[in-house]
Amino acid sequence: MAVYTEVSDEALEAFLAEYEIGGLLSCKGIAEGVENSNFMLHTDGGSFILTLYEKRVHAEDLPFFLGLMNHLAAKGLKCPVPIKRKDGEFLGALAGRPAAIISFLEGMSVHRPQAKHCRELGAAMARFHLAGQDFPLTRANSLSVDQWRPLYLSCEGRADEVQKGLARDIEAELDALEKIWPQNLPRGVIHADAFPDNVFFIHDELSGLIDFYFACTDAFAYDLAICLNAWCFEKDGAFNATKARALFQAYQQVRPLTDAELKALPLLARGSALRFLLTRLYDWLNQPPGALVKPKDPRDYWKRLRFHRDVKSAAAYGIDE
Amino acid sequence: MAVYTEVSDEALEAFLAEYEIGGLLSCKGIAEGVENSNFMLHTDGGSFILTLYEKRVHAEDLPFFLGLMNHLAAKGLKCPVPIKRKDGEFLGALAGRPAAIISFLEGMSVHRPQAKHCRELGAAMARFHLAGQDFPLTRANSLSVDQWRPLYLSCEGRADEVQKGLARDIEAELDALEKIWPQNLPRGVIHADAFPDNVFFIHDELSGLIDFYFACTDAFAYDLAICLNAWCFEKDGAFNATKARALFQAYQQVRPLTDAELKALPLLARGSALRFLLTRLYDWLNQPPGALVKPKDPRDYWKRLRFHRDVKSAAAYGIDE
Repeated sequence: MAVYTEVSDEALEAFLAEYEIGGLLSCKGIAEGVENSNFMLHTDGGSFILTLYEKRVHAEDLPFFLGLMNHLAAKGLKCPVPIKRKDGEFLGALAGRPAAIISFLEGMSVHRPQAKHCRELGAAMARFHLAGQDFPLTRANSLSVDQWRPLYLSCEGRADEVQKGLARDIEAELDALEKIWPQNLPRGVIHADAFPDNVFFIHDELSGLIDFYFACTDAFAYDLAICLNAWCFEKDGAFNATKARALFQAYQQVRPLTDAELKALPLLARGSALRFLLTRLYDWLNQPPGALVKPKDPRDYWKRLRFHRDVKSAAAYGIDE
Repeated sequence: MAVYTEVSDEALEAFLAEYEIGGLLSCKGIAEGVENSNFMLHTDGGSFILTLYEKRVHAEDLPFFLGLMNHLAAKGLKCPVPIKRKDGEFLGALAGRPAAIISFLEGMSVHRPQAKHCRELGAAMARFHLAGQDFPLTRANSLSVDQWRPLYLSCEGRADEVQKGLARDIEAELDALEKIWPQNLPRGVIHADAFPDNVFFIHDELSGLIDFYFACTDAFAYDLAICLNAWCFEKDGAFNATKARALFQAYQQVRPLTDAELKALPLLARGSALRFLLTRLYDWLNQPPGALVKPKDPRDYWKRLRFHRDVKSAAAYGIDE
């Protein structure tokens, strides 16, 4: 539930006076989201999202995120667009937080993705990767292979509290992946968090990508590996090759993967599984007292990790080689 | 924060198929409200609120509430309108809850009401009372004088945990009010919860009343007494006679108060203060463990109660007699 900061009428009116989006008609706090405070605004100019960036987002990264959304929208990609203030900036301040107004993107996330949704996703990811190629800013991936061990160490050896054997397995995985993590793959801006929550559909047609607050500069194929884990496994942990095939086929129709990317996929998928396993493990072990939101079970991603460890080639993902 | 019930895509689509409001474009849980789960819907037909009635609302009261909103809107009152389903009903079921779709009313509640807002409120309350006069359904006020003692007894003598002397004062007040509570005043449908949260403005002009889920059949002047307590006291407890004068003047320009109503006002205001004192006391003493919402301090209404006890006539509220 995501309204962490209360905004007074006066402060909101003063903030909106910096924009040319018409008079305020209504403002409702939105219950979704866990990182920021979000409000739905109606003005004479239409519907917008007002976002107050809470402390989990680093303020120095905001020009990258907002600039990226603006760049992508200008290239015709379906995504929310930050609204420029009268002073030409995307970012202002409200209630002591960095704050921005972003166009409202219609659409709903799909709770149970089917192959047709994975196909739409694949095409959108390829268009996203191409559209971002001439975006001038870069941002290091703060949750890539270098950061996994520090993240694990911050869990202070408590992984076996979740399940016996998890600690030893993570340590072995870190030792392996740090040595063989693929380098020199085609890279550019990746979304890095294209989970079903962040992909909107209207009547089974993709209406846009949202939430670019993990976007960074990294290997395109790693972004696809994240999608593979997030979209192509069933609730019981079973891998659905039909969905994976739909994802990769649609992607490759827009941006064909290189041989190096195809070869690296199983490893990238292992790494992506480990990345989400580690952040979920951290959140599981560090639940604030009285929190309403139950953290996600890290074991879901442990299962995926073991699946990918046994994969010999991209053919297992339904890709024709 | 008010989304207590998760709704699946499939269930929502099936529910919307019972309406003629066009295809679904988006659905966002709204963080405000404490009684029900509310979602903001955008469809091809416009903006709507989807409400799932949680257990604090009695299902048998819903035809009264929804019928009232429909009646008032037909009379030209500014308020949300329940949307009729294809079967002609206002009420359906979603995720195991009674559920309705209601037109979205633009506007913002005012956190710090000024006299001009009280004036708008006064006129709107009078129009509301007149518009409801030929509404055929009735509903007893379940939080009127008869229910105050049972509510107090359910607090099991713990009032002094809030402040020493409170228990004795409430008991004396119950004894007095039960004997002298005004009867036979002009009555009809009252809102019974017209706090600033439930009154919307756009640029200082009242855009509508919302949240009719405490509406009932009772004395019109008692509704005004509730407004008096909710709108005409400052945060520090000081009474603001300018605001009260604005409220009553505007009301009387639309519906003049009878002599009996004017005479009863101080007593009605005491009773209204006791009613909110008691519900706040109950909520204060019965906080669910881990609750995020801090209950309101019952002592604010104790102060108001003592203020009204010293009032000799309606002149103290700025009303010319």
